[in-house]
Amino acid sequence: MMKILMLVCDGMADRPIEDFGGKTPLEVSMKENMDAIASRGICGIMDPIAPGVRVGSDTTHLALLGYDPYMYYTGRGPFEALGAGLEVRKGDVAFRVNFATVDEDMVVKDRRAGRINKGTADLAQAVNEISLPGVDFVFKESTGHRGALVFRGDHLSSKVSDSDPHEIGKKIMEVKPLDGSRDATRTADLANEFIRKSHEVLKRHRVNEERRAKGLKPANMLLLRGCGVAMDIPYFEEKYGITGSCMTTTGLIKGIARSVGLELVETPEGYRDRVMTAQKVLEEKDFLLLNIKEPDEAAHDMNPERKIELIEAIDEALAPLVDFVEENYMVLLSDHTTSSSYGDHTGDPVPIIIAGPEVRVDDIKTFDERKAAKGGLGRIRGRDIMQIMLDLLNKSEKFGA
Amino acid sequence: MMKILMLVCDGMADRPIEDFGGKTPLEVSMKENMDAIASRGICGIMDPIAPGVRVGSDTTHLALLGYDPYMYYTGRGPFEALGAGLEVRKGDVAFRVNFATVDEDMVVKDRRAGRINKGTADLAQAVNEISLPGVDFVFKESTGHRGALVFRGDHLSSKVSDSDPHEIGKKIMEVKPLDGSRDATRTADLANEFIRKSHEVLKRHRVNEERRAKGLKPANMLLLRGCGVAMDIPYFEEKYGITGSCMTTTGLIKGIARSVGLELVETPEGYRDRVMTAQKVLEEKDFLLLNIKEPDEAAHDMNPERKIELIEAIDEALAPLVDFVEENYMVLLSDHTTSSSYGDHTGDPVPIIIAGPEVRVDDIKTFDERKAAKGGLGRIRGRDIMQIMLDLLNKSEKFGA
Repeated sequence: MMKILMLVCDGMADRPIEDFGGKTPLEVSMKENMDAIASRGICGIMDPIAPGVRVGSDTTHLALLGYDPYMYYTGRGPFEALGAGLEVRKGDVAFRVNFATVDEDMVVKDRRAGRINKGTADLAQAVNEISLPGVDFVFKESTGHRGALVFRGDHLSSKVSDSDPHEIGKKIMEVKPLDGSRDATRTADLANEFIRKSHEVLKRHRVNEERRAKGLKPANMLLLRGCGVAMDIPYFEEKYGITGSCMTTTGLIKGIARSVGLELVETPEGYRDRVMTAQKVLEEKDFLLLNIKEPDEAAHDMNPERKIELIEAIDEALAPLVDFVEENYMVLLSDHTTSSSYGDHTGDPVPIIIAGPEVRVDDIKTFDERKAAKGGLGRIRGRDIMQIMLDLLNKSEKFGA
Repeated sequence: MMKILMLVCDGMADRPIEDFGGKTPLEVSMKENMDAIASRGICGIMDPIAPGVRVGSDTTHLALLGYDPYMYYTGRGPFEALGAGLEVRKGDVAFRVNFATVDEDMVVKDRRAGRINKGTADLAQAVNEISLPGVDFVFKESTGHRGALVFRGDHLSSKVSDSDPHEIGKKIMEVKPLDGSRDATRTADLANEFIRKSHEVLKRHRVNEERRAKGLKPANMLLLRGCGVAMDIPYFEEKYGITGSCMTTTGLIKGIARSVGLELVETPEGYRDRVMTAQKVLEEKDFLLLNIKEPDEAAHDMNPERKIELIEAIDEALAPLVDFVEENYMVLLSDHTTSSSYGDHTGDPVPIIIAGPEVRVDDIKTFDERKAAKGGLGRIRGRDIMQIMLDLLNKSEKFGA
């Protein structure tokens, strides 16, 4: 059977940049392999959700996998928890968590506890020994200063605010119910009790004593944010009747992939190895979502020159895929625009190629934001893609007779 | 902060006209400033609501401001009433009204009472002295033969028919309930009583005696139509977090603007003065909707030559805006197609330009229906525009992380 590779170059699309004579990083880049794939495919522009809607990588990846984010996304917490390797069941309420440093007055001195990257498993173990009345919870450390907290039980709600003040020099916030429901009030109370009790445990923990001794900031506070409730999301394999995997370095996208049952594949270091591994995975699986995060990071750092370097490095690694699309399908796209001038995601559409044996190859031979807009796909939406791909495999259901 | 000017050339788009060798008025017009703005922007075509849906100026302006007309538009009445300066609250039921002339048999002799334009305030004052059991009402004259009637109270419904037969030589119609509800029956009864009682007052009013003496047609009947219920529409400033105004000569569009809380600005006579005032308003406000009505009127009059003259006159006045879009954003569009052959609105898409500092300028350098269709925006919808504009200002909310 033909396979589908969905290659997401995260945040690769950009706005015109004055220093580049009004061109985008993608327009300036040398990218002969992307262009060769464009020549073998049909191009277009894609609104991740809808025109002008500014999306996160999480919501857009849900859409790219064919799931309505307005239905399945209530907050980042459950996906972050899944990405951290926690089990999350329908109805669980989850938060993203930062290990942070506060002073005696609960004023945040460092939202990342001096970018702590050791000892967080020990700290998490101690936190899990707390008891909270009437609710089960699991807290788990993730990469660096990150972690996730899952509450499980009846009468929980995701409609609660963050404890994270999102700014240094401010006191931590009380978690508050965001609607008038008793469940939200109860969940906020539980979260505040968790925060108090975990602070007591953390501030006198051996790991933090050692950090203080070394002049490092103690990880004495857990900042909670992005509360969401886990939904009952249909699994990818059941929804489409094909098997799938995901390769990504990003915890949150791992969480999105896990939420729909995609198997996670280790990401090798270099781009060539990632592409080689991707092809290997596709010997077994029908579908692989490969997310390459780095272009997005360069744009968040407002460094378009770095973005160009990364695009060119990725492009070099894509050489084997020019042949791949003779026999298989590939979707090459950016998941959203990340403006190197603004330093964040914007709602502009992104360029997309669908290449493979039976697409109506158009006359676009260069892959960038403006050229793709003249392609045969026209302007589509993120949620259209899986339908199109499934149909190209002749695996879609007929609606009607 | 950068500003947004939304310039709506009402009904400017047209269908191909045989006498023009199959070109549209916009394609035939000399319009160097519109073309210059196109050269500095990204073009496309827009369906006001959806492909082929034939819209009014009211529904399309709601959509252009980002409101779903299927949710907020139940009839023209409430917007006409707002445009006439009446206060309209959620739940009020309102009608458009014409001052008209009927004979003793209630047969309509003139639907506009000889285009009456004096004395209507006096007539309205007398009408407001009527009493109707169990309901508050206000009737107000508007420009010329127009007016609006608002009912306020419990158990009202907008599901009632017109009394206006929409034709000369026919008897006025009884207002009838359009569904089986008791509220609709009650509202129809109240409307019919209002019609009877107002006719009694009007037919012997001094203003009409004077008109008869001068050989003018008396305004002895109020024709009711376009009943709608006022909805709870979120205000523009709350929805988008930016301030806004509207400049229009049309009562109905004034009503749309008032319904979302846009401040109304007086419209100067000449196009140059309108553009100058628009720029002045934008020194204070973030957003201005400028509606220029005349091209639509020419098309309703089936006069495409006149439409060309108007387009060229508007274009001349746009010279200052070519510089404006170096620092600010502008949306230039027609709100709907008005066919000069058919003499009414049609459901064809309209050409649109979005120009400003960070748009992905495309290669379209001529602004018309066919050229715009090849532009970088592709095909969008009316309700997409405010999302896109807000995003260009980097003021949109991020959905996800």
